[in-house]
Amino acid sequence: AGRLGALVVAGTRVTVAVDSSETIDVAATAGIREVLVDVDVGMPRCGCDPADAGRLADEARNAGLTVRGVMGYEGHLQHVVNADERRSRTARAMDVLTAAHAEVGGDVVSGGGTGTWDCNEVVTELQAGSFVLMDGDYAQLGLPFAEGLVVLTTAVSVRPGRHVALDGGLKALAMDSGGPQLVDDQGGAAEVLFCSDEHTTVAGGSWTVGDRVGLRPAHIDPTIAKHATLHLVHDVTAGGDAEVLESWPVDLRDW
Amino acid sequence: AGRLGALVVAGTRVTVAVDSSETIDVAATAGIREVLVDVDVGMPRCGCDPADAGRLADEARNAGLTVRGVMGYEGHLQHVVNADERRSRTARAMDVLTAAHAEVGGDVVSGGGTGTWDCNEVVTELQAGSFVLMDGDYAQLGLPFAEGLVVLTTAVSVRPGRHVALDGGLKALAMDSGGPQLVDDQGGAAEVLFCSDEHTTVAGGSWTVGDRVGLRPAHIDPTIAKHATLHLVHDVTAGGDAEVLESWPVDLRDW
Repeated sequence: AGRLGALVVAGTRVTVAVDSSETIDVAATAGIREVLVDVDVGMPRCGCDPADAGRLADEARNAGLTVRGVMGYEGHLQHVVNADERRSRTARAMDVLTAAHAEVGGDVVSGGGTGTWDCNEVVTELQAGSFVLMDGDYAQLGLPFAEGLVVLTTAVSVRPGRHVALDGGLKALAMDSGGPQLVDDQGGAAEVLFCSDEHTTVAGGSWTVGDRVGLRPAHIDPTIAKHATLHLVHDVTAGGDAEVLESWPVDLRDW
Repeated sequence: AGRLGALVVAGTRVTVAVDSSETIDVAATAGIREVLVDVDVGMPRCGCDPADAGRLADEARNAGLTVRGVMGYEGHLQHVVNADERRSRTARAMDVLTAAHAEVGGDVVSGGGTGTWDCNEVVTELQAGSFVLMDGDYAQLGLPFAEGLVVLTTAVSVRPGRHVALDGGLKALAMDSGGPQLVDDQGGAAEVLFCSDEHTTVAGGSWTVGDRVGLRPAHIDPTIAKHATLHLVHDVTAGGDAEVLESWPVDLRDW
């Protein structure tokens, strides 16, 4: 909070979410000026009891903070496969947020995400992010966004007709939503067998040592966090031959 | 290989594992002087067909490399829960390595790991590493090593009697071997419910916002790789009050 407070002093507009007396105190003490009240809309993570939202808004105002509105992230609904169910459950979660908003006040209603981008009709600020690059898990929902992230590995060991070891594994790919998929499975001849710390073993295929092989992770956020640099390329399917347009540093460790 | 070759030129002794004509060529070209022939002893990852080991040793010698011996990592056996089965399967895997060693020559037989540290009686170099800090997966084997790694988080959101959100999740913990365990489960009152990108949600428990909560990861290697610094403390169970003896930088991204 001290780092954010310094940004506010430097002239940056910073709004933080608060959901308790403790976080309100920390924000006010650190020099934060604007907050949203974070409301639990059904995902057991952050967010206050909806019944407490109005009281916390009063506390924040008494602490000298401007309350811009509410946020309530229906993260537990982002990956519901059935679109009708996703829509109806999102509407119910947003009813909770709308009721809390009436108690809290302010202009902002923040929520929604890549999975509910088109069915959350309540929010004024849509918290979608994964749609930019997508991943294997979101790809199952039939969203109109293309998968843009590839972890480019090199075949370092080959036993012809049996398996290939690639030089990227658990330290390069998030595994919480399952294993990675091959970008090019050679017409179905190859499939990912398993990942170990520094390797992914692919069964089948006809790669030779030194070949570049692309993997698509099942979950994008904790995959990117494992890398020091993100390279933007003209054509992600071109593998090692892709023209690199820009390289961005990644600073996501310790989160 | 170029970076390793520069180390050799600078006077460091470097031995690399090779398992193909291509890796022999790269090693020789880069200025590497000593190699082991890596032999597949049953884990589908790196390692040549045992029948090719002698030929590759000849190739390496013809390329000007010193062949120090063989390695064969029985990684697929490290987590076999039954100790008798672990011992007998390790013996069979090492029979393969012993036969390859007879064809390759050299003094070194490298293999084994934290799970087979006491039943691999063949190797001259034991590749155990996880035993230093252990993890939840290895802890199931009843090895005589203590779990020494804790990811220290802070409770950032509390819904009393329901759940607590901690500020470390998928970007801080390896999930390939399952979720983390609480260091202190408050007498069984609390358990890890799930991890999301930046949070772990704990069901039950009586923590308040700001409390420090320790998590033990199920897999140590890819957990450490997610952090920028490893802090050595006097008593790892002391949480935020532990005396920090040393802090080591971690440089394991992009592997």
